Amino acid sequence: VAKLYGIGVGPGDPELLTLKAARILSEVLVIAYPAPLEGQGLARTIAEYLIPQGVTEIPLRMEMTLNRQSANAAYDAGADEINRQLRAGNDVAFLCEGDPLLFGSFIYLMERLHGHAEIEIVPGVSSPMAAAAAAHFPLATQDEAVLLIPATHGEAELERLIASVQTACLFKVGRHLEKIRRVLAKLGRLDKAHYVERASQADQKVLSLDEAIEKGGIYFALVLVGS
Amino acid sequence: VAKLYGIGVGPGDPELLTLKAARILSEVLVIAYPAPLEGQGLARTIAEYLIPQGVTEIPLRMEMTLNRQSANAAYDAGADEINRQLRAGNDVAFLCEGDPLLFGSFIYLMERLHGHAEIEIVPGVSSPMAAAAAAHFPLATQDEAVLLIPATHGEAELERLIASVQTACLFKVGRHLEKIRRVLAKLGRLDKAHYVERASQADQKVLSLDEAIEKGGIYFALVLVGS
Repeated sequence: VAKLYGIGVGPGDPELLTLKAARILSEVLVIAYPAPLEGQGLARTIAEYLIPQGVTEIPLRMEMTLNRQSANAAYDAGADEINRQLRAGNDVAFLCEGDPLLFGSFIYLMERLHGHAEIEIVPGVSSPMAAAAAAHFPLATQDEAVLLIPATHGEAELERLIASVQTACLFKVGRHLEKIRRVLAKLGRLDKAHYVERASQADQKVLSLDEAIEKGGIYFALVLVGS
Repeated sequence: VAKLYGIGVGPGDPELLTLKAARILSEVLVIAYPAPLEGQGLARTIAEYLIPQGVTEIPLRMEMTLNRQSANAAYDAGADEINRQLRAGNDVAFLCEGDPLLFGSFIYLMERLHGHAEIEIVPGVSSPMAAAAAAHFPLATQDEAVLLIPATHGEAELERLIASVQTACLFKVGRHLEKIRRVLAKLGRLDKAHYVERASQADQKVLSLDEAIEKGGIYFALVLVGS
């Protein structure tokens, strides 16, 4: 039976792939990955140097916006094509930025191919850990709790949830920095916040929230909040 | 200037070290790691096959209990010894299970050696991702929030915090399974829970909460709770 691998390629530094991910990429004949309408996308870029020549590639092309319709159509078509490869006896490795199951696109593929193939997931280094490493920021010790939450939530809910934990990692912060600033000012934790952009990549940046607001936030950034 | 590396060796499968961790281990002349009073400890066991012959080893020996006094003394003495190596010009790699900054022992060393050395942290695959991979359990999509929390918290607080998120990963569940069961029963989420023991290791187990209670929980286990 052919196997579908969900492979976390890590946060951006190509050296942060696992040995297992590297081995599987050297063995499979088919790879798939999410991609924008043009270009190869971040997951393939990260793993590029490990992809052997001549493998069959299945890019799942979608608009890189919050448009679920475009994404769902891409996952439907991609799942069909992957399924054909699996039924032909070819193992397929699906590449995901970070970890496959933490905000990872592999989840949508797993939903569609569950029961159709043997599935093995190779966990990856995810962006909160890479951002913490960049900022030398302890995420948790002892009995502390960590909240991973998209910054898209409403202001009151963010305030309530962040107030109840020692550490918060806010995802997708790009357009939400002013809101985050207001929440953290209310909680008295503005000086405990670090904005980390493109963690582990060559152009990684660690800034205070005010510096980030002045510069302008991007989508591939996190805000780490301590206490 | 010599460098102190905090290296995440991942959740247990030696293949889940990163390429970067493997490279650094092949380059340094001194390694350090937390260890029980006898034996080598889990972090060194995971990385064992990557440790070259002849490196200097600094085991930080401590009672593997919640006894902070024993641990603090071990970190104090270990930090001194590591500092001597750094001042002699030798890079030192400190090995941590999982990720160095998420409940990682490197945090205690960083506190002590901050300012004394250049510090570089190599993030690792952490146990929630490995447990999710084992259980084929999506941690989060879209706007969902994930809580990482030690099961040592009180029953009312666990209930309140888990109720406010889509996904919870409970750490250190060993002796707390009955309490977790009561909390999840109240929240109507008992059937959304997976107990995962020794994720990614050869003797990995994925069980329902009731199966885990019958078998008995261990310290190196997580409970993943969906919604």
